[in-house]
Amino acid sequence: MAEPKVCEDLLRERRKCTFDVTELTNLIDGGAQGTEERHYVENLVLNTEGLSTKNEVPEEYLSHKERYEYAVKKACILYEVLKEYAAKHNTMDAFKPTNKYRVTFGVVKDISPFMLHMGMFVPTILNQSDPEQMAEWLPQAMSMGILGTYAQTELGHGTFLRGLETTATYDPATEEFVLHTPTLTAYKWWPGGLAHTANHCIVVAQLYSKGVCYGVHPFFVQIRDTETHMPLPGVKVGEIGPKMGFQTANNGFLGFDHYRIPRRSMLMKNAQILKDGTYVKSKNDKLTYGTMVFVRVLIVTDVAYELSRAATIAVRYSAVRHQSQPKPGQPEPQILDYVTQQHKLFIGVATSHVFRVTGCWLWDSYSQVIADVGKGNMDQLPELHALACCLKAVCSRDATARVEEFRLACGGHGFMASSNLPIINGIVAATITYEGEYTVLMLQTARFLVKAWKQATLGNAMTPTVSYLVRFVNNDRVRWENRPEGIVSGFLAIAAGKTKAACESLQEYERSGMDYEDAWNSASVQLVNASEAHCRAILCEVSWRELSRLAAQSSPSLGKVLLQMGELYLIYWALEKRGDLLLYSTITGADIAKLQARYEVLLGLLRPNAVGLVDAFDIRDEILNSTLGAYDGRVYERLMEEALKSPLNAEPVNQSFHKYLKPLMMKAKL
Amino acid sequence: MAEPKVCEDLLRERRKCTFDVTELTNLIDGGAQGTEERHYVENLVLNTEGLSTKNEVPEEYLSHKERYEYAVKKACILYEVLKEYAAKHNTMDAFKPTNKYRVTFGVVKDISPFMLHMGMFVPTILNQSDPEQMAEWLPQAMSMGILGTYAQTELGHGTFLRGLETTATYDPATEEFVLHTPTLTAYKWWPGGLAHTANHCIVVAQLYSKGVCYGVHPFFVQIRDTETHMPLPGVKVGEIGPKMGFQTANNGFLGFDHYRIPRRSMLMKNAQILKDGTYVKSKNDKLTYGTMVFVRVLIVTDVAYELSRAATIAVRYSAVRHQSQPKPGQPEPQILDYVTQQHKLFIGVATSHVFRVTGCWLWDSYSQVIADVGKGNMDQLPELHALACCLKAVCSRDATARVEEFRLACGGHGFMASSNLPIINGIVAATITYEGEYTVLMLQTARFLVKAWKQATLGNAMTPTVSYLVRFVNNDRVRWENRPEGIVSGFLAIAAGKTKAACESLQEYERSGMDYEDAWNSASVQLVNASEAHCRAILCEVSWRELSRLAAQSSPSLGKVLLQMGELYLIYWALEKRGDLLLYSTITGADIAKLQARYEVLLGLLRPNAVGLVDAFDIRDEILNSTLGAYDGRVYERLMEEALKSPLNAEPVNQSFHKYLKPLMMKAKL
Ligand SMILES: Cc1cc2nc3c(=O)[nH]c(=O)nc-3n(C[C@H](O)[C@H](O)[C@H](O)COP(=O)(O)OP(=O)(O)OC[C@H]3O[C@@H](n4cnc5c(N)ncnc54)[C@H](O)[C@@H]3O)c2cc1C
Ligand SMILES: Cc1cc2nc3c(=O)[nH]c(=O)nc-3n(C[C@H](O)[C@H](O)[C@H](O)COP(=O)(O)OP(=O)(O)OC[C@H]3O[C@@H](n4cnc5c(N)ncnc54)[C@H](O)[C@@H]3O)c2cc1C
Repeated sequence: MAEPKVCEDLLRERRKCTFDVTELTNLIDGGAQGTEERHYVENLVLNTEGLSTKNEVPEEYLSHKERYEYAVKKACILYEVLKEYAAKHNTMDAFKPTNKYRVTFGVVKDISPFMLHMGMFVPTILNQSDPEQMAEWLPQAMSMGILGTYAQTELGHGTFLRGLETTATYDPATEEFVLHTPTLTAYKWWPGGLAHTANHCIVVAQLYSKGVCYGVHPFFVQIRDTETHMPLPGVKVGEIGPKMGFQTANNGFLGFDHYRIPRRSMLMKNAQILKDGTYVKSKNDKLTYGTMVFVRVLIVTDVAYELSRAATIAVRYSAVRHQSQPKPGQPEPQILDYVTQQHKLFIGVATSHVFRVTGCWLWDSYSQVIADVGKGNMDQLPELHALACCLKAVCSRDATARVEEFRLACGGHGFMASSNLPIINGIVAATITYEGEYTVLMLQTARFLVKAWKQATLGNAMTPTVSYLVRFVNNDRVRWENRPEGIVSGFLAIAAGKTKAACESLQEYERSGMDYEDAWNSASVQLVNASEAHCRAILCEVSWRELSRLAAQSSPSLGKVLLQMGELYLIYWALEKRGDLLLYSTITGADIAKLQARYEVLLGLLRPNAVGLVDAFDIRDEILNSTLGAYDGRVYERLMEEALKSPLNAEPVNQSFHKYLKPLMMKAKL
Repeated sequence: MAEPKVCEDLLRERRKCTFDVTELTNLIDGGAQGTEERHYVENLVLNTEGLSTKNEVPEEYLSHKERYEYAVKKACILYEVLKEYAAKHNTMDAFKPTNKYRVTFGVVKDISPFMLHMGMFVPTILNQSDPEQMAEWLPQAMSMGILGTYAQTELGHGTFLRGLETTATYDPATEEFVLHTPTLTAYKWWPGGLAHTANHCIVVAQLYSKGVCYGVHPFFVQIRDTETHMPLPGVKVGEIGPKMGFQTANNGFLGFDHYRIPRRSMLMKNAQILKDGTYVKSKNDKLTYGTMVFVRVLIVTDVAYELSRAATIAVRYSAVRHQSQPKPGQPEPQILDYVTQQHKLFIGVATSHVFRVTGCWLWDSYSQVIADVGKGNMDQLPELHALACCLKAVCSRDATARVEEFRLACGGHGFMASSNLPIINGIVAATITYEGEYTVLMLQTARFLVKAWKQATLGNAMTPTVSYLVRFVNNDRVRWENRPEGIVSGFLAIAAGKTKAACESLQEYERSGMDYEDAWNSASVQLVNASEAHCRAILCEVSWRELSRLAAQSSPSLGKVLLQMGELYLIYWALEKRGDLLLYSTITGADIAKLQARYEVLLGLLRPNAVGLVDAFDIRDEILNSTLGAYDGRVYERLMEEALKSPLNAEPVNQSFHKYLKPLMMKAKL
């Protein structure tokens, strides 16, 4: 059958594009080879029988239970297909940011029940088990011989790890740990895949030996029989119910009733328990930082990707949708021609690039620090930790806001599940909370900033990401310069100024008689503001530097567009934060009016390339899953086709008419 | 059985409250009698057999189809119960803002398939049919003898009503209209209850007579047989599929194939078609404004209510949740004691009050204008229209942001459907789009503002809500005064300043050679900003005035709290908009620091009353539907109880293990 034609609007847009779309695609994939490899994996998966979702009732129509069963089925076929490929890539390096495996969204639209298996179970084994443990567990996990997850959060505690209540008490008589759930709030709650999918998991529990509590440690625990899948005696496990998203993630709860596991179930790369119950401390407490930081680093590029999906949907739809008639007698314009619409869309496209390049830079910093740690040098861990905290927090939050803006930009149809924007919204919104809640992470970075400010005032040497503070110790108004580097300077001044203000407020509260922690709490709104300003400055500085570097390496036509996006991001935020610029730089009202004018010019410059820019994200229709965003622009046909798949539409009259509606109407006639 | 005890944290909070909770409840209900009537309706409904949801599998677990069937069943019992009561209240006045009927959320958590029947079908009959039509249709509609909806939006057109493609062509030979859907994009798309519930609807179509198109008009159309519920010949109707919310609203599509309806099906209060096909124009085009404005006015108090539900959940949960240990050795504090948490919560509580009092003020303005219109005076319609546009837009958007903030404030558990925050989020988010999309409405208000600015510069007389512009024609920096009235002045100055800037930018673009509409488009980002500033100024001015008035009428202890909330709202926004205040007032950095300090003081003042404030919203557990927000604070027990209702938890091993997981694992062992 011939493929349906691409709609005329999109054809015209594509003809207008001023740069080579493939060149940008390759840049996003980290080189042409990256694109090739991604295509290889995508073809491998999407050409597999049983993985196409095209002619099925879409998963959103199913009951919660059916939806899970559907996801398990698909995920099993998928992992069977990917296993061999993945086995060749089982080092931590294989986890570096890549869009290769995003093809899973072409198989299950929402989160897979196996997400935690590869996302947390395997990495924890890689990072925290000793060589013997690794040799035993890793091959099984990589080949899906066992199915795992990561169980840390409990009903009563997520943020505060030291407050976890699950206990692991060592019994030297049998050389076993006894896992126990002493209270309702001690139940594990949230781990993905835990409910009915995993038969093993990493359990984080309070370690007791010889009557002493040594704090939380990870344990490798079997929870279900591998033959029958029945929960093992002493294990109580189930699912936690529907959520705002993650419907197919199979998040579960887990309780133990004096459940025994062998001594060697404790992950022993760092701390250990000897046979007699002696506790051997980890050489460095900070070593566990590594895994936590790892996941946060990846979230930055994850949300960049989700943004690119939402952008593709909203921009293509805006090219196809025509609405209103500003000029009597003339045809209705594409909504993409409304400047307010460009204002909603282009900052989101730019943000996706900003987050991706910053995320890759962060990954490189991470890899380098971890390599140093391997050599025994831990000096840079605190800075990396502070950086990953605020970047994870701010990027997840910004991305959620941008995805929602993309959704709203599609008007009513953006509210349809078939647009896929609601599902993407659920996926992105969750990142604000998991792996460290927004405010909690921002306050972590604030602790680092407060220390750094003190160092700066003392004239001490500073680590790279906060060395800018020194410049503002005695002078907080930076001279305004109306160019990208000037905006970056402005943001550094804001960050320093807010850090200073928060520190002063902290001292003020202390002077009023509060102890440090009460003062900290009282100043915490300002401390979070300081963290945000610091993070925004880093995003501006790093992304402008990285985009400039990439632009210099690209063809002139692409280079120009990369710089336009970098500049749009800077100006958008300069306008958003003009109050702060007025306080911490010499900017004037006239300068701000110039920024506004330049912003409007940039929207106009990006307009002809809008569709080219999202085409360059190179997201296949099967992965996009959107009636509004498909490559061919057949929006209305798809909306209707999808609606006709509704089981409700299979019958002209639903049974509820006879049971309920008719009797109701009959009574009215009496 | 004895009721489970209220948790100690909430008991202690309630003891701390400094004002009379019932007094505030009565104030919210517009008097003690309002509370009594609401309680009467709530008891009527919630004591009805078959309406309690307590022991059922929660609706989120069902398939899309089952969920609809469940909602229809509940809605029928509900309307049967409410019918008699409602019949006594069938004038437009009965539609004035009240929380009496919010009890429907205690029956179906999400939107009812009957929402449009009472929300749009009945009001349109009331507003647009002539006396004879009203006499025929209204009693049937009020008694649920017929089930209706309002079908305006099409696949291709929502915003642009003049672009609707459905045609109604008058045939004088038979004295009928022929309804027709000429294209795919002409299909009606979105109307609530249209899919499988309604048998009648108001259809908005292009009226043709004697070869002339007279634009869009409303028609009263039967679409299904009342006996069999089969779609009538020539009618194609079905549902549009799952959405981000409104899962049980049964939104539908509708197409006509040369479908004939009697001449008198056209709603003839305003325009008419005579038997011979002569078109009789409406006396005033603006008369149709009325219904549009009506629904927008109600949205302001609707979102105020949704905010109060989300606030109740998040504040009570924050009183029960303990997390982290700022001080070594001390117990974990209630998260409500973190100032960052208070920052997230209290502005949302205050916003609910601000929107409610502003919404009631808007309703009063509306009623008065409509009364004048009845006497033939249309002068105030444009101002009312402009006011309703921006207030609907800004309140819907702000409320959505605040609900999301409440959800995030609950950490991971806020992501659970059983918290009810995800459903509330879907309900509120939709209001940004339906009944006039955000940007489109903001630009409508901007048109009014631009005209008003011109009048102001000419020294002409101004209508009340824009008369402030005159003060700023020659002087745009207002003298800063650090008190509530000073903040209100500051916001008026910002609104005037931004209106001026947008007008100048518009002229600038025109001078550069653009025609007016292109210039309008180019300046539209600034025009929307001006609208937003105008709306914010109105919210600040009206709410401060109304809350002060109510405070004066209340007991001193309650009065104090009302003023604190009003002031919190003002200061919160003054800090958010400090950039604008720096540009348009004489405020200094030191003044801003004072505002920040006062903000932190206010959070502390509101803290002891936090639980009392949400208790005063007086939302019964059945209507709140939340594991996190119930009156007794048994959060963890409820989370587990709800999870155990999951059909997946009925079996220890799901069938998918044997079908998919086991074979996957077995292959690994080969
Ligand atoms: C979709 C999803 C998937 C998840 N998957 C997993 C998983 O696979 N495995 C797993 O173990 N966990 C998982 N989690 C749990 C997740 O890690 C926690 O929800 C997260 O860490 C936040 O903790 P919390 O829920 O306890 O929030 P809380 O800490 O209770 O936060 C509630 C509020 O209190 C505030 N607060 C708390 N402490 C402080 C403080 N010290 N100072 C100021 N404010 C404070 C927060 O800012 C927030 O506003 C998942 C969660 C979600 C939503
Ligand atoms: C939950 C829900 C329930 C609904 N229920 C009903 C119902 O019962 N009955 C009914 O008839 N309809 C209903 N609707 C439809 C609703 O009224 C429309 O979706 C709404 O009016 C917005 O129109 P649209 O979808 O055409 O958006 P569009 O106009 O297509 O908006 C898309 C984008 O284009 C922009 N845009 C459009 N025109 C302009 C312009 N002139 N200038 C600048 N920007 C512009 C918008 O700002 C937006 O960003 C419902 C919708 C929803 C989401």
